[in-house]
Amino acid sequence: MTVRADSISLSTRGMNDTHDVTGEVQRAVADSGVTHGTVTVFCPGSTCGVTTIEFEPGVVGDLGDCLDRIAPRDIPYAHDAAWGDGNGFSHVRSSLVGPSLTVPIVDGALTLGTWQQIVLIDFDNRPRRRRLVVQIMGE
Amino acid sequence: MTVRADSISLSTRGMNDTHDVTGEVQRAVADSGVTHGTVTVFCPGSTCGVTTIEFEPGVVGDLGDCLDRIAPRDIPYAHDAAWGDGNGFSHVRSSLVGPSLTVPIVDGALTLGTWQQIVLIDFDNRPRRRRLVVQIMGE
Amino acid sequence: MTVRADSISLSTRGMNDTHDVTGEVQRAVADSGVTHGTVTVFCPGSTCGVTTIEFEPGVVGDLGDCLDRIAPRDIPYAHDAAWGDGNGFSHVRSSLVGPSLTVPIVDGALTLGTWQQIVLIDFDNRPRRRRLVVQIMGE
Repeated sequence: MTVRADSISLSTRGMNDTHDVTGEVQRAVADSGVTHGTVTVFCPGSTCGVTTIEFEPGVVGDLGDCLDRIAPRDIPYAHDAAWGDGNGFSHVRSSLVGPSLTVPIVDGALTLGTWQQIVLIDFDNRPRRRRLVVQIMGE
Repeated sequence: MTVRADSISLSTRGMNDTHDVTGEVQRAVADSGVTHGTVTVFCPGSTCGVTTIEFEPGVVGDLGDCLDRIAPRDIPYAHDAAWGDGNGFSHVRSSLVGPSLTVPIVDGALTLGTWQQIVLIDFDNRPRRRRLVVQIMGE
Repeated sequence: MTVRADSISLSTRGMNDTHDVTGEVQRAVADSGVTHGTVTVFCPGSTCGVTTIEFEPGVVGDLGDCLDRIAPRDIPYAHDAAWGDGNGFSHVRSSLVGPSLTVPIVDGALTLGTWQQIVLIDFDNRPRRRRLVVQIMGE
């Protein structure tokens, strides 16, 4: 069995900034030589999330609008009252969307749909430097 | 170690149509001979999701009602303005719920609770044919 | 390859009661001897969830407030009408947050961020005894 950890570094603007990392994940899988197994894409940090989406500007904005409704920026947060960093809404969105995604690898390919991309969303209220962990397991 | 990919095909009606696939996943695990490991259930596509629920009509409807509140069908979506397929709400729900679920296998059994089933939810606005990937890893 | 199942038992108060289990998961990983792989933390049950959060009382309360908005306790639920246990809101929250989290293990450590903890949230409307499954795979 092979276990291989890779990583993806990227700069984000925060405020729901969404990055398609499918190509980088596919390259990491190809480099690993694993043809059957799983890849786990994980975002270290409590103000970001990983999920899939049809990566086109319309839907990306629509998802952001939904999160703005669910966890608005301009309501009081106990986190902000205690810590003063103004990103309580970012933390809540991160816990809801979640930091982890596991995708099967079959015959050397990710089993994504045609219009389905893997994305990092940065919910923080400021630009950040992020490093995603890409953990590949299989044979 | 064993890595085995199986799949589940099903027809859905869209509009939060929810299918219990626990039995099929259990059969795939039994067929694999894996007694300790994990199974990842993954839905290719950007308008569906995989999660767990107590599979009874009441809760299934309640979850749909919640998603109707969070991502209503009848508000404007940039996706619909650009692509005209009228399923912007479906995409948003899919990204929130997520397409992937990993369940431990211990002593040959899924570690689900008694009232906890694995479900595919189809958020699209029309009937679809879906194929779930069931990736089993372990020994 | 090693596959090792561990578990964490804890008593909860329900009503979004949130428990940091990072230390227990780290101990299970250390005990397993796995230095490269993944750990899946899974909550059996349909009224609880597993995610990550900056575990400080402010954010924990903010996330609970968000779930109170998304799936309020005091609206009618079909589940409650059918079963009378009054925890329809708990089931809906559980399906949204999800019962499973997979975290990479690299060089013997979980790849969590500094301010990112693994939590069980109990959404039920009463105290419960919970047992989390911690499934470690790797080498």
